[in-house]
Amino acid sequence: MNTIGKLYTLTSFGESHGEALGGVIDGCPAGIPLSKEEIQHELDRRRPGQSSVTTSRIEEDCVEILSGIFEGVTTGTPIGFIVRNKDQRSRDYDGIKDLYRPSHADYTMQAKYGVRDYRGGGRSSAREHVVRVVGGAVARQVLKRLGISIHGYTSQVGPIVLNKTYHELNLEETDANVVRCPDSVIAREMELFIRKVQEEHDSVGGVVSCVIRGVPVGVGEPVFERFQARLGYYMMGINAAKGFEYGEGFHAASMRGSEHNDAFVMRNGQVRTLTNHAGGILGGITSGEDIYFRVAFKPVATIGQEQQTVNRLGKEVTFIARGRHDPCVVPRAVPVVEAMAGMLVLDMMLEAGKIPYRV
Amino acid sequence: MNTIGKLYTLTSFGESHGEALGGVIDGCPAGIPLSKEEIQHELDRRRPGQSSVTTSRIEEDCVEILSGIFEGVTTGTPIGFIVRNKDQRSRDYDGIKDLYRPSHADYTMQAKYGVRDYRGGGRSSAREHVVRVVGGAVARQVLKRLGISIHGYTSQVGPIVLNKTYHELNLEETDANVVRCPDSVIAREMELFIRKVQEEHDSVGGVVSCVIRGVPVGVGEPVFERFQARLGYYMMGINAAKGFEYGEGFHAASMRGSEHNDAFVMRNGQVRTLTNHAGGILGGITSGEDIYFRVAFKPVATIGQEQQTVNRLGKEVTFIARGRHDPCVVPRAVPVVEAMAGMLVLDMMLEAGKIPYRV
Amino acid sequence: MNTIGKLYTLTSFGESHGEALGGVIDGCPAGIPLSKEEIQHELDRRRPGQSSVTTSRIEEDCVEILSGIFEGVTTGTPIGFIVRNKDQRSRDYDGIKDLYRPSHADYTMQAKYGVRDYRGGGRSSAREHVVRVVGGAVARQVLKRLGISIHGYTSQVGPIVLNKTYHELNLEETDANVVRCPDSVIAREMELFIRKVQEEHDSVGGVVSCVIRGVPVGVGEPVFERFQARLGYYMMGINAAKGFEYGEGFHAASMRGSEHNDAFVMRNGQVRTLTNHAGGILGGITSGEDIYFRVAFKPVATIGQEQQTVNRLGKEVTFIARGRHDPCVVPRAVPVVEAMAGMLVLDMMLEAGKIPYRV
Amino acid sequence: MNTIGKLYTLTSFGESHGEALGGVIDGCPAGIPLSKEEIQHELDRRRPGQSSVTTSRIEEDCVEILSGIFEGVTTGTPIGFIVRNKDQRSRDYDGIKDLYRPSHADYTMQAKYGVRDYRGGGRSSAREHVVRVVGGAVARQVLKRLGISIHGYTSQVGPIVLNKTYHELNLEETDANVVRCPDSVIAREMELFIRKVQEEHDSVGGVVSCVIRGVPVGVGEPVFERFQARLGYYMMGINAAKGFEYGEGFHAASMRGSEHNDAFVMRNGQVRTLTNHAGGILGGITSGEDIYFRVAFKPVATIGQEQQTVNRLGKEVTFIARGRHDPCVVPRAVPVVEAMAGMLVLDMMLEAGKIPYRV
Repeated sequence: MNTIGKLYTLTSFGESHGEALGGVIDGCPAGIPLSKEEIQHELDRRRPGQSSVTTSRIEEDCVEILSGIFEGVTTGTPIGFIVRNKDQRSRDYDGIKDLYRPSHADYTMQAKYGVRDYRGGGRSSAREHVVRVVGGAVARQVLKRLGISIHGYTSQVGPIVLNKTYHELNLEETDANVVRCPDSVIAREMELFIRKVQEEHDSVGGVVSCVIRGVPVGVGEPVFERFQARLGYYMMGINAAKGFEYGEGFHAASMRGSEHNDAFVMRNGQVRTLTNHAGGILGGITSGEDIYFRVAFKPVATIGQEQQTVNRLGKEVTFIARGRHDPCVVPRAVPVVEAMAGMLVLDMMLEAGKIPYRV
Repeated sequence: MNTIGKLYTLTSFGESHGEALGGVIDGCPAGIPLSKEEIQHELDRRRPGQSSVTTSRIEEDCVEILSGIFEGVTTGTPIGFIVRNKDQRSRDYDGIKDLYRPSHADYTMQAKYGVRDYRGGGRSSAREHVVRVVGGAVARQVLKRLGISIHGYTSQVGPIVLNKTYHELNLEETDANVVRCPDSVIAREMELFIRKVQEEHDSVGGVVSCVIRGVPVGVGEPVFERFQARLGYYMMGINAAKGFEYGEGFHAASMRGSEHNDAFVMRNGQVRTLTNHAGGILGGITSGEDIYFRVAFKPVATIGQEQQTVNRLGKEVTFIARGRHDPCVVPRAVPVVEAMAGMLVLDMMLEAGKIPYRV
Repeated sequence: MNTIGKLYTLTSFGESHGEALGGVIDGCPAGIPLSKEEIQHELDRRRPGQSSVTTSRIEEDCVEILSGIFEGVTTGTPIGFIVRNKDQRSRDYDGIKDLYRPSHADYTMQAKYGVRDYRGGGRSSAREHVVRVVGGAVARQVLKRLGISIHGYTSQVGPIVLNKTYHELNLEETDANVVRCPDSVIAREMELFIRKVQEEHDSVGGVVSCVIRGVPVGVGEPVFERFQARLGYYMMGINAAKGFEYGEGFHAASMRGSEHNDAFVMRNGQVRTLTNHAGGILGGITSGEDIYFRVAFKPVATIGQEQQTVNRLGKEVTFIARGRHDPCVVPRAVPVVEAMAGMLVLDMMLEAGKIPYRV
Repeated sequence: MNTIGKLYTLTSFGESHGEALGGVIDGCPAGIPLSKEEIQHELDRRRPGQSSVTTSRIEEDCVEILSGIFEGVTTGTPIGFIVRNKDQRSRDYDGIKDLYRPSHADYTMQAKYGVRDYRGGGRSSAREHVVRVVGGAVARQVLKRLGISIHGYTSQVGPIVLNKTYHELNLEETDANVVRCPDSVIAREMELFIRKVQEEHDSVGGVVSCVIRGVPVGVGEPVFERFQARLGYYMMGINAAKGFEYGEGFHAASMRGSEHNDAFVMRNGQVRTLTNHAGGILGGITSGEDIYFRVAFKPVATIGQEQQTVNRLGKEVTFIARGRHDPCVVPRAVPVVEAMAGMLVLDMMLEAGKIPYRV
């Protein structure tokens, strides 16, 4: 339920406004020098209040690592960590404790468990993603040593679509702007659109695209643990994700086989494909080509407009959300998509026997 | 790897041209009268040679149940079954045994395992889906007793798109035509298009839409086993699936919160939503509303045109596929999507404690 | 529930008097030449009617392999197999269908599932062990190539105890007698004792000892998947097993540290221990020394004497079991213990990264 | 590896001398008022320095709960907790950092991972049990509400054996003495023996017996997740455990069926057994009778005598352990056995559908 992965696993705990969030990373190969700064850097990329298009709430998410590292390297034992919630008492959620906010998890959590921590969404808050970002940052440090990189970026915000493939972009520029779109012109349009939406007390959805480079041929365990099935599982487990596609994705539905098939060729003595409509996966197993995919996000549920809803007594009421929230989740979702991808790739590399236990 | 599910599990085995395919269903509640005819009916819906738009190869897929049923009812013990391959020796795959067919799993299987059963794709063949159809047919008989129904249908074939929501369709008519599209006009267009593609020795992709009705509020286990995450995993594990979305899916990316949010209302004393953009899932937990989703399929990789490829010796060669294959996988994918959905729903209902062990 | 293992898994199905028993082996490394004769040989070692001290019921347990092998070698895909029940209709279990036989699973199965296949114990019959023997025989063929051997033998039958360590025995002689005790004098005593018990319409328990040689240092995953914890799980899952111990086992309770500790020494450039009270496992991880353990079995529950019991209507009744049964399960349990050990060792070797995916 | 359980799970992290130990409890039913005092009480029962027969090292193990509780009750979300190591810097382990202490995990950890935290045994220390004690204390609070109790006690210390069944003892008196033996005469003998061993700079093994009362009929999932198989797995996963038996255990090996079989009788309208040699489990499923079992522990590996060993450079050396350690692990193992049993019972009750998700 709160553990993900088979050989590289992350167990997550914590509520938005509880004492702390945290997790346990298990199955990390031993002997890896781990940079706490890189982990913190990823947390900083996700944290609120980092820019003009995110919520103005300021939280410093400092990770404290409690185990699994000795003399600077991983020991193969579980890495426990916590991120304390600093401002959790400063907020007042009394106004919504008996309400079911539309398109939030309030109602379903209450119905399922009979009780819920209503403060800031409790366990359902996207704040839980800090745990995943740590899990992903550790995995990506292992992958980096194996020449595997993961690059996510914002490719759509509302009606504004980045119509370029990742080949046409310089993905190193992703973090150069606040929306994390590696095309400065489109990025500017997105930023302005998000501000406009914000001024209208509304929110907007978007898409994160991602490319994974350097995964060798042979990763993926058919028939059920196909690489794309597990990747889809990891991505659809992110808050607000509504769709997942890889390679040509939904566009493949309108293609013909003669267009979509990727011819095999020899390149530098290796079997490669001339095109890569497949998205780097054949029969559930990686082919050695780039793996690319997209994740759709819904607009943030919290908006500053009056909405109709129901309270715990079953009475229909109206309400307006207080406080400030992100008008668009996508810029801060980029590091989360990367983190989830990193954990998945390392897990499946381990299962495929592609990573020695001691790297 | 070849087992799916947590409490209701299916373990699958078998190659396209081996002795038999089969599986083991574990965790089926006890005391359920099981209709073998309904299982066989689902297999017949998936079998090749059933219509003018599917391959002309004829296989009678007869299921033999070997355990788990006593005096007509399930006993709670595992249900083992096999489906023998009848014509597996009649075919000659010598021509492709040393080739990597484009967009098939030949190359990745060989690279991963160092050996492969090349006959008809071996384990990578979509023929493996017969096992899943049996697993799904059993699950759906349990679900039916609880008032849960699952309806899949073809909503796109190449460029031909069914632009209606499931509310506007009579889903009982899905099987009335060979493409399994419950709109007879669009269905006719799809059928003609598939024939045209076939005549051009090509193939085409498509989309299966599906709606699940009757799942109660409270099913889904955040944060990682969200209903949609597991549903995405099940769907992306189907051969040729390239994308998955639920509710508004990718369309949500261009929506605003004020549009997308579903207002809560009281209806017949129950908490319901006025709209259902969410697709029946909030915070990873079912809300009691209909669950609807779509799965994109790529065009069939086997086409009757000359293609460039590479052989096992690393030499570039050309080849033309022999034999007859489906020009479009979608009509036969409908029962597979339903089967996978059925298994997932039963599994998660069990985990949520919504099904007594003895139904 | 009916699947065991993490990377090398066995899924089991089938009832004592149903159509067939069978299973699915998943995770077997690819490229292994598999001898069907060796599998059948292990089944023959377990089958009833093989000697004067086993039941006179004669079943030929012929394994049919349905998948996962191509051109004589494993392909890395699941190995499905069945063993048909040949004489399942010849028996009449009507007399016991409404009875709960003492120390059998009749009552608990009925209470748990509300229904049960009463014929020969149904799913609770030790006949299910045929599935495990196949799973173990495959695993052991892989292990043999890595120099790992597993030897089980009968070390106690009722009051007759073999007071020798495995070092003092020639384990190749285990199958030289019907009780599978590698000491011909003790074996003869055991055989006579079992016959005496049989004549008295009674049954008797016993102990199987087992030694695993050749496992390298480093296998076992603390803290919960310690080698001995998983080994205990596999052994306690055998029908009629009542106890498990490894190394000095229960005897260690009365030892002192100065006696029990194994001094480390260098031998041929390797770290070894002078003694091996530990039984080849330190901190849950194999040390490279021999792994030895013992499994206690209760006396067979079916005896030819009048017993008091209760029927399904809750009435107290007496009954005498009909038919012929083993007076002592231990000789036929030896191949089962070995099979379970083989599956466990291969599974944990895979997890420890000690087996390349392609052997 | 560091997660145990299927529906009620505990994930453990932390080293003996690291920052903190801790864990995540997942799957705890919602709505349970949880007493932190009861959790702390169990930790106090396990902590070192509590009596004259335990190590004089004093650690206050204070649990800090970080999530999963809201307004005093469980919310169904994961319960994260930590126990800080207070004196971890005060100790000097430099003397052993390059040594492999006999019968400790030093060598196997180093061989497996290539690196290890040598301070106080690091991850291999029995100090990790604090995490389990917390996991068990929570589970037992849930079980108590269902009328299920778990009582462990010391039944053997070296040669001193408590020759009484649990029926002949008042288990409420277990904690009345320092050895946790509920017979004051035998307890006194054990205490004196432990002191004698301690004076001789030696250690001694022992046995913990345990009885679980109140588990209803029907818990256990054959064929592989038999109650006793999972119980054996949990017990053999405790540090220093060498053997497990339930019911008559190893003694059953010398019994006859006519002795061992438990006659069914009707008592107060319920199916019960006249005797309970089976130990409350039939066919892997609980029968409603008491479940009783025993766990053997080896003598503590650390002793104050000169021992022969090998260092990391492969040189044979001698050494004497410094510091003070328990001469007998058994008194402090009692709460650990109870904790593991509690987690197992709750996990399997959940799987058997015997606990509503909301208690």
